[in-house]
Amino acid sequence: MTDNREHNDQSKQEVELSSGVSRKQFMKNIGGAMLSGGLLAGLPLGNKSAKAASASNGRGRPDAPKVDRVAADPRDIPSPITRNRPVTHDITLESKDVISEIEPGVEFKYMTYGGQVPGPMIRVRKGDKVNLTFKNNSQNTLLHNVDFHAVYGTGGGSKATLCPPGQTKELHFKLMYPGAFIYHCAVPKLDEHIASGMYGMIVVEPQEGLPEVDHEFYLGQHETYTNKDAGEKGFHELDTEAMKSEDPTYVLLNGEKKALTEERYGAMETEVGDTARIFMVTGGPNLTSSFHAIGNVWTKAWREGAIASEPEEYVQTCHVAPGSCGIFEMDFPVPEKSFLVDHALSRYNHKGMLGVIKVEGKEQPHIFDPQS
Amino acid sequence: MTDNREHNDQSKQEVELSSGVSRKQFMKNIGGAMLSGGLLAGLPLGNKSAKAASASNGRGRPDAPKVDRVAADPRDIPSPITRNRPVTHDITLESKDVISEIEPGVEFKYMTYGGQVPGPMIRVRKGDKVNLTFKNNSQNTLLHNVDFHAVYGTGGGSKATLCPPGQTKELHFKLMYPGAFIYHCAVPKLDEHIASGMYGMIVVEPQEGLPEVDHEFYLGQHETYTNKDAGEKGFHELDTEAMKSEDPTYVLLNGEKKALTEERYGAMETEVGDTARIFMVTGGPNLTSSFHAIGNVWTKAWREGAIASEPEEYVQTCHVAPGSCGIFEMDFPVPEKSFLVDHALSRYNHKGMLGVIKVEGKEQPHIFDPQS
Amino acid sequence: MTDNREHNDQSKQEVELSSGVSRKQFMKNIGGAMLSGGLLAGLPLGNKSAKAASASNGRGRPDAPKVDRVAADPRDIPSPITRNRPVTHDITLESKDVISEIEPGVEFKYMTYGGQVPGPMIRVRKGDKVNLTFKNNSQNTLLHNVDFHAVYGTGGGSKATLCPPGQTKELHFKLMYPGAFIYHCAVPKLDEHIASGMYGMIVVEPQEGLPEVDHEFYLGQHETYTNKDAGEKGFHELDTEAMKSEDPTYVLLNGEKKALTEERYGAMETEVGDTARIFMVTGGPNLTSSFHAIGNVWTKAWREGAIASEPEEYVQTCHVAPGSCGIFEMDFPVPEKSFLVDHALSRYNHKGMLGVIKVEGKEQPHIFDPQS
Repeated sequence: MTDNREHNDQSKQEVELSSGVSRKQFMKNIGGAMLSGGLLAGLPLGNKSAKAASASNGRGRPDAPKVDRVAADPRDIPSPITRNRPVTHDITLESKDVISEIEPGVEFKYMTYGGQVPGPMIRVRKGDKVNLTFKNNSQNTLLHNVDFHAVYGTGGGSKATLCPPGQTKELHFKLMYPGAFIYHCAVPKLDEHIASGMYGMIVVEPQEGLPEVDHEFYLGQHETYTNKDAGEKGFHELDTEAMKSEDPTYVLLNGEKKALTEERYGAMETEVGDTARIFMVTGGPNLTSSFHAIGNVWTKAWREGAIASEPEEYVQTCHVAPGSCGIFEMDFPVPEKSFLVDHALSRYNHKGMLGVIKVEGKEQPHIFDPQS
Repeated sequence: MTDNREHNDQSKQEVELSSGVSRKQFMKNIGGAMLSGGLLAGLPLGNKSAKAASASNGRGRPDAPKVDRVAADPRDIPSPITRNRPVTHDITLESKDVISEIEPGVEFKYMTYGGQVPGPMIRVRKGDKVNLTFKNNSQNTLLHNVDFHAVYGTGGGSKATLCPPGQTKELHFKLMYPGAFIYHCAVPKLDEHIASGMYGMIVVEPQEGLPEVDHEFYLGQHETYTNKDAGEKGFHELDTEAMKSEDPTYVLLNGEKKALTEERYGAMETEVGDTARIFMVTGGPNLTSSFHAIGNVWTKAWREGAIASEPEEYVQTCHVAPGSCGIFEMDFPVPEKSFLVDHALSRYNHKGMLGVIKVEGKEQPHIFDPQS
Repeated sequence: MTDNREHNDQSKQEVELSSGVSRKQFMKNIGGAMLSGGLLAGLPLGNKSAKAASASNGRGRPDAPKVDRVAADPRDIPSPITRNRPVTHDITLESKDVISEIEPGVEFKYMTYGGQVPGPMIRVRKGDKVNLTFKNNSQNTLLHNVDFHAVYGTGGGSKATLCPPGQTKELHFKLMYPGAFIYHCAVPKLDEHIASGMYGMIVVEPQEGLPEVDHEFYLGQHETYTNKDAGEKGFHELDTEAMKSEDPTYVLLNGEKKALTEERYGAMETEVGDTARIFMVTGGPNLTSSFHAIGNVWTKAWREGAIASEPEEYVQTCHVAPGSCGIFEMDFPVPEKSFLVDHALSRYNHKGMLGVIKVEGKEQPHIFDPQS
């Protein structure tokens, strides 16, 4: 049985990219770079200078459509579920490799679902069924697939959906348990694909639904490992050795440095007295987030997105493991700018991990009164 | 009071090793290695080339019996406890250093309890007593001991059990609280001994026992730090500098690369409709596991093995801290191969961390239906 | 409304330092160090030899008062709250940069609150108000401030309290939710300030208070990143590159190597049959603690200090995220020395992370009986 309304809810996830394709190649002078890397070892160059030399593999910048933005809009979320019966959803998820900027001047080849990081949020209800169509965009160059943590079955569906560029696979599954779950690419080099942005979230609401809130925001943290220093202009290639050492160049919220702040695409916005729910997914591939809202607190926290369990209350900082999620409720009793960070603070201070929630409204000096 | 039945239950833990002793020495040309390490710094050699040069300390391959396998059989577990009265157990735990392979062609000196990694699982009940005999095998070369997280007392017993090779110590203790607890070596260089495999689990069942399941599996994750790259043939020595940087060469389930898969000793096996309980211990010495079953979910999770607390339900990924445990229940509604991984996925993809549960039975297309 | 009794309780937090100021400068021969770092790369020198060369920035040892001790006394805690009505507290917190030793012979420039690490513990009750005066000591050289995780409002108060040396700022806030919360410096280079010691705890008791215990201890873990090897004599400068790689030189309990042990300032002391509560704060800036009491267990653990939630029981090892806290209750059924460690054991074995609780009293051989 297919419910068309639900089908429409989900169809927004088939994002079409505007593709200003750039095909320029930036071949590197590898020999020279290696030479200077060797001779200058120990000198106070940028940390990655030797690494860049040794990690480059002779590829130029790869071919892929160039896009202006990969950061998912945190407000682009399917509506909460209000029905009390199961439905079947037709959902299409498409992998799209794109070139975009981690921060201005820093280009990177992202691998994505739907051209965004994290990939489109899917929202279903325990007991629902999904007819999934997975497309590997014909402009891509590698095998891709999708592993859903919400699904019982080999590879969470990754074996069934594995396909080369230009092809399509189908998978049908039933949601047997509630929670917020990651989906991610799970080809043999899965850590590289996730470090390139290939992860998203499927929310399986419990049959009784979720508490009403005024706002919902969709966020994803992942880290990437490149052959240049953070902030160094140019095209950054993935650095496998740094990834094996779990020593990232960037730790990102929604795929770009400080994407959800006023200096990029704008802060998230609420008002005094509002409530919000954060759907947070950590792609990793390797790092655990110590997720914290500066100047605020998680009123309720469902660790690992395990919504069937009782939430913890008034949690200042909550781990979100790589390959896991968190659901967090917030109150906004005062006007403020709340900074969302990984409280492993060097990731905020040096690697780009920051989002902002702006709370507008009347000062509440009986609660918070700066004497400036 | 000694209960002989219980004594018999536990006696399986006194594993006798077949010891094909190898005494060949592979002395390294240290000077040459260092020279090339120095001159080639920055060149695109394997990541550990310089490290191998600097970490080697002139030892050849140490003397120890050579064995074919150290991976503990995940099914070799004492039976669940059904009695409703306390007993006293006579338990012998013996430390045995052995040479074995992390993966084919990669030799390593393991330090073990009972010749296996993780060491034999001990199973008792809250209120029971244990007469422990700790033997340090006479072929070993170092002091060893055992620290039980299940025990109140200095060092968890490590001070009382400390002894040189060829000697034996006794310790008597009562189990005062329930849960799944690690035991591990706790000599001054304890991180090196754990990185060499010296850890296991003691399960202290609550007085009401544990829920019935169809299968129980015993798993242990630890990481080791060597002076060669992962996969590089030859004898790998422990690399203390890499250990201090928490940058391991291998992250292993039951002590060997992909031990519990069909390419090594075989997958764990269940059938559709079965249930299973996983007893998981993370030795570390340093890394937290983000433990996940691909294509499945932890139906119930007792974080830290803290069985006196309520379990969390439908947890996709659960941290298991170094020096801690987890108890996880699983359902198998569909036939599949579920891959058990640390979802810090570079540890799976590059460092050997993988186990497989094979679920046989009839396809259940109403739940999972790949269209291949 | 100001409650003077409360004011007195808190006033102990205005610690005055005895300041044996040392102004000697140790200018480094940077050129020579870099040269040897470059030529010797790959040779088996101490791990940080090249790092020291490249990280030194030409500063000598900075000017700051020299003090003998920064480790906070774990017993220096405001009394538990017994009143059943809200009060207003006048609290002064002062930032003080000092030179002190991480371990004998190893000097470091600490940034602190009140001259101690962790900073003074503040203790209030849900519903209370605080009139905070933040002073940046005139001998300091940098901007400082304070971000309270217990506070709703921009920066947790860090924007309102930001001030240069010699100045004072005021902030008024109401405690809206209970728990144990970190406070820390939150200037732009906040990770450096926290790595230098600038963090502490505010406990917001629930309105019903906390269970009675015989002892309370106040502990803080943080890690620091320096340009020398652990144990290398001399003045250690902060190493930003190591901090970005989350590869610390020292991991410390109460700010100094093995501060709370008999070889430094003495162990914490209890007796058989006593109970204790540990207030634990992890400053980070980056590492998660896997906090464990060797030879003991957390009878109750409030993960993240989230006291509004149910505690977990009999937890062997508990994560405390950077920028978070834990509240732990302990029983002492036997005489022992319990070692408090981060069970990422290389941090204990190589980086200084250790505290001791000494439990005096009669042997209890029916529970723990070493046969020595």
